[in-house]
Amino acid sequence: MARRPGGARSKRRMQGLSAPQGGTVSPFIREIPTYDMVGENRLDAIHDASMRIVEDVGIEFRDKIALASWRDVGADVTDTRVRIPRDLLMEKVALAPSSYRHCGRNPDRSVEIGGRSMGFAPVYGSPYVRTLDGERRYATLADFEDFVKLAYLSPALNLSGGTLCEPVDLPVAHRHLDMLYAHMRYSDKPFMGGVTSPERAQDCLEMCRILFGSDFLEHNTVMTSLVNCNSPLVWDETMLSVVRVYAAANQACIISPFIMQGANTPITTAGAYAQLNAEALAGIAYAQVVRPGAPVVHGATLSTVSMKTGAPMYGTSETQQLMFLTGQMARRYGLPMRTGGMRNGSKATDALAAYESLQTMLPAILAGGNYFLHSAGWIESGLSACFAKFLLDADQLTVLQRLAAGMTFDDDAFAFDAIAEIGPGGHFLGCDHTLQHYATAFFVPETSEQVTYEQWSEEGSHDALSRASALAAKKLREYVPPPLDPSTDEELHAFIAKRKEVLPDTLS
Amino acid sequence: MARRPGGARSKRRMQGLSAPQGGTVSPFIREIPTYDMVGENRLDAIHDASMRIVEDVGIEFRDKIALASWRDVGADVTDTRVRIPRDLLMEKVALAPSSYRHCGRNPDRSVEIGGRSMGFAPVYGSPYVRTLDGERRYATLADFEDFVKLAYLSPALNLSGGTLCEPVDLPVAHRHLDMLYAHMRYSDKPFMGGVTSPERAQDCLEMCRILFGSDFLEHNTVMTSLVNCNSPLVWDETMLSVVRVYAAANQACIISPFIMQGANTPITTAGAYAQLNAEALAGIAYAQVVRPGAPVVHGATLSTVSMKTGAPMYGTSETQQLMFLTGQMARRYGLPMRTGGMRNGSKATDALAAYESLQTMLPAILAGGNYFLHSAGWIESGLSACFAKFLLDADQLTVLQRLAAGMTFDDDAFAFDAIAEIGPGGHFLGCDHTLQHYATAFFVPETSEQVTYEQWSEEGSHDALSRASALAAKKLREYVPPPLDPSTDEELHAFIAKRKEVLPDTLS
Repeated sequence: MARRPGGARSKRRMQGLSAPQGGTVSPFIREIPTYDMVGENRLDAIHDASMRIVEDVGIEFRDKIALASWRDVGADVTDTRVRIPRDLLMEKVALAPSSYRHCGRNPDRSVEIGGRSMGFAPVYGSPYVRTLDGERRYATLADFEDFVKLAYLSPALNLSGGTLCEPVDLPVAHRHLDMLYAHMRYSDKPFMGGVTSPERAQDCLEMCRILFGSDFLEHNTVMTSLVNCNSPLVWDETMLSVVRVYAAANQACIISPFIMQGANTPITTAGAYAQLNAEALAGIAYAQVVRPGAPVVHGATLSTVSMKTGAPMYGTSETQQLMFLTGQMARRYGLPMRTGGMRNGSKATDALAAYESLQTMLPAILAGGNYFLHSAGWIESGLSACFAKFLLDADQLTVLQRLAAGMTFDDDAFAFDAIAEIGPGGHFLGCDHTLQHYATAFFVPETSEQVTYEQWSEEGSHDALSRASALAAKKLREYVPPPLDPSTDEELHAFIAKRKEVLPDTLS
Repeated sequence: MARRPGGARSKRRMQGLSAPQGGTVSPFIREIPTYDMVGENRLDAIHDASMRIVEDVGIEFRDKIALASWRDVGADVTDTRVRIPRDLLMEKVALAPSSYRHCGRNPDRSVEIGGRSMGFAPVYGSPYVRTLDGERRYATLADFEDFVKLAYLSPALNLSGGTLCEPVDLPVAHRHLDMLYAHMRYSDKPFMGGVTSPERAQDCLEMCRILFGSDFLEHNTVMTSLVNCNSPLVWDETMLSVVRVYAAANQACIISPFIMQGANTPITTAGAYAQLNAEALAGIAYAQVVRPGAPVVHGATLSTVSMKTGAPMYGTSETQQLMFLTGQMARRYGLPMRTGGMRNGSKATDALAAYESLQTMLPAILAGGNYFLHSAGWIESGLSACFAKFLLDADQLTVLQRLAAGMTFDDDAFAFDAIAEIGPGGHFLGCDHTLQHYATAFFVPETSEQVTYEQWSEEGSHDALSRASALAAKKLREYVPPPLDPSTDEELHAFIAKRKEVLPDTLS
């Protein structure tokens, strides 16, 4: 028997597996097939159901500029109701690219969004955080920066995200500047832009001009921003004007119906999908009216509403079915797909939080998702962003990313010689074949432990939440920011200062 | 707008959704497609790799009767090593039924094992339990009976299972009698038989003769029992003699390699699968040598061994890939498939326990599993059976069962009229279409809560573990056993008493 794993050399090799600062630069490519839940004839019926909604019921565009544009291109516009013939709609949708490069300021960290390529962004939009001590309190900019740092350090997150939490200690009108700066300064992964007003979206574009250079921005997509539809069937002025700012500048938008099945959609899943698809396609088509070829992402924010209490529920069978349908339809339309998220309604970072999260995220991977929002840190129906859960989620993302990476089937992988060498009743721990592979063979989640029960008890019976909190504290202590050119940094500061002079500084 | 959910009548309708005592009688049929991870040509290569192992390396059968049988049917037997030509092996495997009816003493609760039909059995084999107070201690017969009762009460579990926990308060040689009696008395769902010796298997058969009648037993399968292979490539005398007892009596065996990938298989996943498939097929073929047409289940117990610590890991990418391969190959061979389980290595019923459990169970459903062992209650690498986790797992099983049941695509489900009626900006909570569907529309896990954070805090901040413990206590208080004919009960007692007279009563 040859060497066993565990010596000094092997220890170094194992450490090579752990995250370098800034995380992985390897792209996440889905090498396994998508899961196609329904057959082609069903997809025809689904498409037709969505087309009937867009043609006969129509979509409300509560925005004068958008209404004028729809009239110009030949849609039937009555007041704010736009009925779009299916040929016109699909002609516009067909202009959208099936994939686009979402650039990071570190070009090694740019992420392709579309096809078999996957981008994972953290939690988005929580007003509260769960601190490392388990306290629940309003989020601050310091929390926001800490989430940027954790995402930067995590090999499982290849996107820095957007509103990781809502920094309520800052004036509402200033927040987008400080949030975007945090992404730019404390990470070098691709990020999202502000969407709360067209002016703020414009500010984000300006800051990107400073960071990337005007020339680069002209020809590249450096932001992917989240634009929600007010379901059922309403696109409002804020969202549409933000789409205009970003699409005109060739920046990407996730055109995302906000689904609470049973409340703002039909209670039946087929109906809920037909509606969300109609809403998303109408939004996508509008982005193409603004600028043909503007990058967009099809998908939705999904929850199911409890008919007992009216509360949103996550990780339900219905959201799983909606994700599988979204994947199949997005591929049919040749569009990148937004889906997934470690979403749950639990008040605590407990077993239920984990179950609901994975009931969402695992199907999302098999559904063929391209842009995954809320991939780490989400609890409590999105009201809180939890630092410990961020790391727990990131570990489970790695499991899914490795599943998606597929497996090898060559002679070496079939290992006939090793099986013949070891034979019945032996073990493989020290054989040559094992030694050749063990350094990269398995992933051991850093939030897990592999001690005996007795040792675990003696060491304080720390559960996953407790271990992950300690690990997050350690990571934040050891964090080192990626380099940023001092003159760029200065220019960003100057722009932000200038904007803050003219923007109101009220806290609500 | 019509009535809203929430009135007295609707409340009764909602209650109709909750479990009757004894749980559901509806079969779990997979109406969605399986997930096929690899193409047909890969399956050829995998089959060939397994055949090379059986033909060239051979399988060790450490049992004289089995060796003689193999020699008789034409295998190459040298000492205890049996090399089986692939044509001979596959000729025997082809004799196994692709599906069989696993009868319960209540005929309404019989479960088809195979095809698109699914059976879910609880945790198996834990020496410890986690009590409702969170204590970890050795399991007793009283605990065992409580798990039988919880499985009986759960609509998500359609099988009563086997060694739900190890009742270490009983003499080793008596346990199988008391365990089987508990399944027979406190449930009416199908159960497993003892496998620790051929004599004990024989006792189980005798008890089934009493419960079902000799005539019925002659023509029906009333037990499905778990027979593990000592990987790599060893079938031992105990397991083989148990297979002989059960197969000869037309009772089903799960022929299950016990995989610790990297320790008792090659570290590479293709090699691990080739080996486990060779082991399973050899065991299945042997059951067919004993009795052509004996019901068997293909599958394995899966874990991945940490190369850092040697500890088993669950819910890994590798176990997921092995499950998908097992599903595809079992379908190719026309065999029912054992897989899944809410398996994890966590010491606590925490987020990690849940993540690892679902990383196993969700792919198992899509892989096309037929017999799911450890479907509820497993923690701590199987060392403990946890009452609270039993209910948490059962809730998540229901989510998966509803996913597997598929969705409806008729005009009513597409809900065009409802969408047109509500229109942009409205809501669906009270519309006729919602009222027609809401009673059966969504599943609300009984271990979840849908209150505000403030209310949740005021009520004691109970996490999922705490809520599920309270719920388990309530269920056990309210449990009522299913009826059992008193003369049958007497006869069972008499048989057990007679056997205990002659069996040693030592505790270890």
